[in-house]
Amino acid sequence: MATKLNKKERLRQLKIEIDKNPFYTDDELAELFSVSVQTIRLDRMELGIPELRERIKNVAEENYHKVKAIVGSEIVGELIDLELGKSGISVFEPTPDMAFLKTKIIRGHYIYSQAESLAISVIDADAALIGVANIKYKYPVRIGDRLVAKAEVIRRRGNKYFVWVMIKVKNKEVFRGKFILASLESDNTEKEMQ
Amino acid sequence: MATKLNKKERLRQLKIEIDKNPFYTDDELAELFSVSVQTIRLDRMELGIPELRERIKNVAEENYHKVKAIVGSEIVGELIDLELGKSGISVFEPTPDMAFLKTKIIRGHYIYSQAESLAISVIDADAALIGVANIKYKYPVRIGDRLVAKAEVIRRRGNKYFVWVMIKVKNKEVFRGKFILASLESDNTEKEMQ
Repeated sequence: MATKLNKKERLRQLKIEIDKNPFYTDDELAELFSVSVQTIRLDRMELGIPELRERIKNVAEENYHKVKAIVGSEIVGELIDLELGKSGISVFEPTPDMAFLKTKIIRGHYIYSQAESLAISVIDADAALIGVANIKYKYPVRIGDRLVAKAEVIRRRGNKYFVWVMIKVKNKEVFRGKFILASLESDNTEKEMQ
Repeated sequence: MATKLNKKERLRQLKIEIDKNPFYTDDELAELFSVSVQTIRLDRMELGIPELRERIKNVAEENYHKVKAIVGSEIVGELIDLELGKSGISVFEPTPDMAFLKTKIIRGHYIYSQAESLAISVIDADAALIGVANIKYKYPVRIGDRLVAKAEVIRRRGNKYFVWVMIKVKNKEVFRGKFILASLESDNTEKEMQ
């Protein structure tokens, strides 16, 4: 949007944009409409549109009901999309206490936890465990970064599921993992998983 | 030890055994001496030998000073052995809140955290990050299991370190992981890690 809009028109289009993509940050919207972040905040208040964090939570709430293999509260991050047995998306903002004291870089296992719990969430079974994971950390993640993880069930063989997870910060891929999960009957968890 | 010893002799040998291996549980010692766990506890009190948890902490304290690439308190579990640049051992007892509500099995990422933080601990550099990890969960871990992780630096190429981590519960291998880590200079963390 190259030209500035009058306020009425901006409010109308702002609502349309957020309906299309509820995960725009105020920064991104400010850029899109060539106005200040403060203006976007006032516009949102006028339209009664909650802040991003709240919007993410609202979308996530609906998805937690669909999850089968894990309890919603055990998912690291907010589950903003889920097609059970197929794919899922979660958003996670690590907190400062999750960073290494020395390097201020977010500790790998928190990123891993987001990926692992999302991989379990997409499985269409009452319980599932990770058997194998091949993972790659591509760029360091820092305090304030917003991690968007996408999981996809690539194939299924019996009770084994192959799930790929990619995590991005903005458009940069920071993590990639391939997981093999086994769905469980409640009486066979003593058997070897691989 | 097939035959029961008299008390004086048992106390003498108990001290020798715990000196040799401070990580015996009271259960294991009871079996070794063919007496009840209660007897072992009374014997320990008489000898002034603290309980296992305390003994592990004492050994771990000494090792935390040697660690370079991570702050001691960031290590998941107690670091009971460390040869910087070569190998390390940590002991970790997951707590009940680390188990999945559905299956009562310890969540994979807690086991992963022990392995990851141990892999970083053994690196002889001021800071290090995980680049790649290939991991395998072999048996489910349950509440009350004591995880013993061993890490070994297999080789080094420039600032890349190849570290293998094996985790056992009693004598059963429950987890195995190969990690590739990169040591960091404080000014190159923005570069791609792989």
